[in-house]
Amino acid sequence: MDRTASIRVWPEAVAANFAGMRNRAGAAAAVVKADAYGLGLDGVVPALLGAGCDSFFVARLQEGVALRALAPKARIFVLDGATAATVPALIAHDLVPVLSSLAQIDAWRQGRGGAAALHVDTGMNRLGLPLDETAQAARRLEGVSLALVMSHLACGDDPASPMNAVQLARFKDALARLPSAPASLAASGGVFLGRAYHFDLARPGIGLYGGHPQPGHGPNPMQCAVQLTARVLQLRDVAAGDSVGYGASFLAPAPLRIATIALGYADGVLRSAGGRAEAVLGGRRVRLVGRVSMDLITVDVTGLEVAAGDDAELFGPSLPVDEAAAQWGTISYELLTGLSRRVPRVYEGGASA
Amino acid sequence: MDRTASIRVWPEAVAANFAGMRNRAGAAAAVVKADAYGLGLDGVVPALLGAGCDSFFVARLQEGVALRALAPKARIFVLDGATAATVPALIAHDLVPVLSSLAQIDAWRQGRGGAAALHVDTGMNRLGLPLDETAQAARRLEGVSLALVMSHLACGDDPASPMNAVQLARFKDALARLPSAPASLAASGGVFLGRAYHFDLARPGIGLYGGHPQPGHGPNPMQCAVQLTARVLQLRDVAAGDSVGYGASFLAPAPLRIATIALGYADGVLRSAGGRAEAVLGGRRVRLVGRVSMDLITVDVTGLEVAAGDDAELFGPSLPVDEAAAQWGTISYELLTGLSRRVPRVYEGGASA
Repeated sequence: MDRTASIRVWPEAVAANFAGMRNRAGAAAAVVKADAYGLGLDGVVPALLGAGCDSFFVARLQEGVALRALAPKARIFVLDGATAATVPALIAHDLVPVLSSLAQIDAWRQGRGGAAALHVDTGMNRLGLPLDETAQAARRLEGVSLALVMSHLACGDDPASPMNAVQLARFKDALARLPSAPASLAASGGVFLGRAYHFDLARPGIGLYGGHPQPGHGPNPMQCAVQLTARVLQLRDVAAGDSVGYGASFLAPAPLRIATIALGYADGVLRSAGGRAEAVLGGRRVRLVGRVSMDLITVDVTGLEVAAGDDAELFGPSLPVDEAAAQWGTISYELLTGLSRRVPRVYEGGASA
Repeated sequence: MDRTASIRVWPEAVAANFAGMRNRAGAAAAVVKADAYGLGLDGVVPALLGAGCDSFFVARLQEGVALRALAPKARIFVLDGATAATVPALIAHDLVPVLSSLAQIDAWRQGRGGAAALHVDTGMNRLGLPLDETAQAARRLEGVSLALVMSHLACGDDPASPMNAVQLARFKDALARLPSAPASLAASGGVFLGRAYHFDLARPGIGLYGGHPQPGHGPNPMQCAVQLTARVLQLRDVAAGDSVGYGASFLAPAPLRIATIALGYADGVLRSAGGRAEAVLGGRRVRLVGRVSMDLITVDVTGLEVAAGDDAELFGPSLPVDEAAAQWGTISYELLTGLSRRVPRVYEGGASA
């Protein structure tokens, strides 16, 4: 059936990005939470398995269950951890909870869970065991098979941040007070902070999907893996002074040709993109004018050869995802995970153009 | 299986809101595009049918096909219109395209389509036939069964906007030059602009789902129909000067107790909500601190009785969706349609609390 918008995904590019991360860090797991950052778990996981990836991270229990069906033999870590209510399902689906508190350790032990990971907090103050509870945790973990001790960097995307060295020192301190186990600190950004941050396992996420691990710090080392396109539904000539869109907030400063495109905030184009973001149409950058509607955006195509039925790119090979995200007032992570299920994912062979 | 976050939906409240709109306007169709504004087409449509709703609007062809399976006898309008590529599927599923250009009229005629609607533009400059093409359209529509002539207000949510009267006059002018057919101008906001805007069919959307049709203009006449909740995963005491979250952008001004909640931008909480939005926890309003992460938010619960496992409301009966949307820097429409499929919809009987 004819589709007015599509998310094209190149799973082989995801696999190549994974291999690049693994080669740089020595060992790596793939972070595939949030439906593989919006690219689609079903479409991406086979390529990652094909690249030799045998360990994955998800956030929610339900994501782990869905992944287990796709990867029967993989090691699957669940970042939400374990509570008394979730222990039975974690065990039934052979998932490894990332325990983040003494209470979670107790729940896992009482539920007779097997291997588990431990998340220690070194400065995010979000999830993770506080450093002053590591001694207690070490005692309570007796008898638990500790598959991994991990922490998470708050500023790994910024090699200049002093926070990185602070967290590295705290992580080493915690490791010294905990039972011996493989260690993991680096996500995509951390992989590019150097060997000291690699430990035994890296956990790249955004880089797998083509996002820059450290935006603003040199060229993006990752391959483009995803493109958002949508069709021009209609062209319209407006006179100087005419308004376009909701709230009549945009007034044409001169006669303009406006293209209306079948993509709106219900598809994932943030309203904050209105009036500032770009698209690529007919090989040229064009600007969004007026407000983003639920199902439509309007772009200024004055002077360009554009016809109804043409496809516009919102991000992809011609407009890097990090650049688009900055135009939308956010980061590539939110742009990708905000893509709605209304837009079909289309999986392509080979590398992106 | 245990769920850390839920979207509770009250279909009977949606049905009651529809009945209220229909009573006020005389006749109404339900706008259920974008998966019924994020509430879930499957859960909402049966209640609307039960309330006697027999006409629906969707945006995309694929949405019309999905709705046809739920509502075999309903009249279903597709706002994206018709192209040569979509005519066969529109006919096969008995969908009524809302034609928006001479080219679309031609495509529908050439494909031997049946009843169609016509969208005339009266000031949105987005989709719709330009007014100066109405005479040509009238000729080309000969032989087409015209089910509806519609237009869309740019400022219907603001009763003080002079744009409303301008568009009303243009719409009447267009109707006079087109074949006789039922007419429709009002969406939710338009229903509250008075009888002159009602014509033969209103098309409420946001009001059905509990959003205020005219935010800022008196109390919300609609019933709350949806609530977003999520669980506290962990509590943490941070010292004055400690940072919370990515970028270490929030520094605690004093010792604080922080609750980490299993909900992030991959669930639909916009990053723009970070540091400014509220949640309701333990019966009290609490504020988000630090950045919104992909899977987690952090809130300040200092001095409150809160435990891991408690549920926080992000919007719903205790925190109106329009107020939450304003705190997030957007409108209720984007907040609702941005809710991701990762969060399960749970349908409740009766009215919201």
